[in-house]
Amino acid sequence: MNTYPSQLLEKAVNELTRLPGIGRKSALRMALHLLKCKPEEVESFGNAVISLRNSVIYCTSCGNISDSEVCAICSSPKRDHGLVCVVEDIRDVMAIEGTGQFNGIYHVLGGIISPIEGIGPQDLNIGSLVEKVEHGGISEVILALPTTIEGDTTNYYLFKKMAPSGIRVTMIARGISIGDELEHTDEVTLGRSILNRMPYTGSK
Amino acid sequence: MNTYPSQLLEKAVNELTRLPGIGRKSALRMALHLLKCKPEEVESFGNAVISLRNSVIYCTSCGNISDSEVCAICSSPKRDHGLVCVVEDIRDVMAIEGTGQFNGIYHVLGGIISPIEGIGPQDLNIGSLVEKVEHGGISEVILALPTTIEGDTTNYYLFKKMAPSGIRVTMIARGISIGDELEHTDEVTLGRSILNRMPYTGSK
Repeated sequence: MNTYPSQLLEKAVNELTRLPGIGRKSALRMALHLLKCKPEEVESFGNAVISLRNSVIYCTSCGNISDSEVCAICSSPKRDHGLVCVVEDIRDVMAIEGTGQFNGIYHVLGGIISPIEGIGPQDLNIGSLVEKVEHGGISEVILALPTTIEGDTTNYYLFKKMAPSGIRVTMIARGISIGDELEHTDEVTLGRSILNRMPYTGSK
Repeated sequence: MNTYPSQLLEKAVNELTRLPGIGRKSALRMALHLLKCKPEEVESFGNAVISLRNSVIYCTSCGNISDSEVCAICSSPKRDHGLVCVVEDIRDVMAIEGTGQFNGIYHVLGGIISPIEGIGPQDLNIGSLVEKVEHGGISEVILALPTTIEGDTTNYYLFKKMAPSGIRVTMIARGISIGDELEHTDEVTLGRSILNRMPYTGSK
């Protein structure tokens, strides 16, 4: 890109490229858009981001983002505290909550094991999960990690770590997406879905 | 999207959707990315955007963004102040400066006439252009607006406004992009490029 007519603009563009997936062209478009907003709107924008970073609290029990020391899910008496769903990050909690199909609690790892990106078990929120399991009171741990090599590696690591406690460990079902046609499904998923076929019960 | 685990997060996501082309999913990804940055980085991010909006100066001569009352281009003795290039916005100034082919000064309209979007001549920085032309000392005005109906309408409006002064008004060349093959050029551009053919001079 070219020289900027103003250092303030250049600085703002540089900062906006911090955002994931935003290059210099998009950042410039964003900066010029913000210039057309009211000053109080831009102030509200900047301050919301700063106060998110400075004031955010992570639930001491599950690692999810929270407004209090223990999050709304972990502190709810309506949830089944014996059922723990292990997820990669906060977005997965929101996605599963959106289904309305899960009534247990969560455990947010904050990532998955990825040797390529240099992320090992010690970088993740794994210790407190194992402690929680060993402490007792949990009947089942559901692994809900991505269906990738990294996800599978993490699943296996967690399974090995929790095995001594004899706890029931399950994994979310993998197979054909609801509504998908077989001819458009990739071969690996289709092959696995035949190997892992389930008893027909009359429901979807 | 679903319920947010934290009001701070929800507020930040709402604010991030102010950015052009950013929906709730991208905004959430951005917010979670910023949470992984250092607090001082996020503070620098938020403050750069706020101070851009609060401290920005527009050049009193051309309307470009500037760090001083008159921008670096308008105050440069090396530029030809008799040659004025009219553009839609600041990005166009940066794009033309990037070519290194123009040594005059600019006039930034801040938009183009668009009845559909409710933008009329009175909303644009047109008055000061006409004044500048009538004031004298300018030998040529180059219209460098988009090659759209709105751009053409604005070109015509500006031409009519400046006609009484008898000034030379030109328009940037329209034709086949350098490097393009004819078979991939749209019919309108190709047809116009034949009608507006230029004397062959041996250069590109």
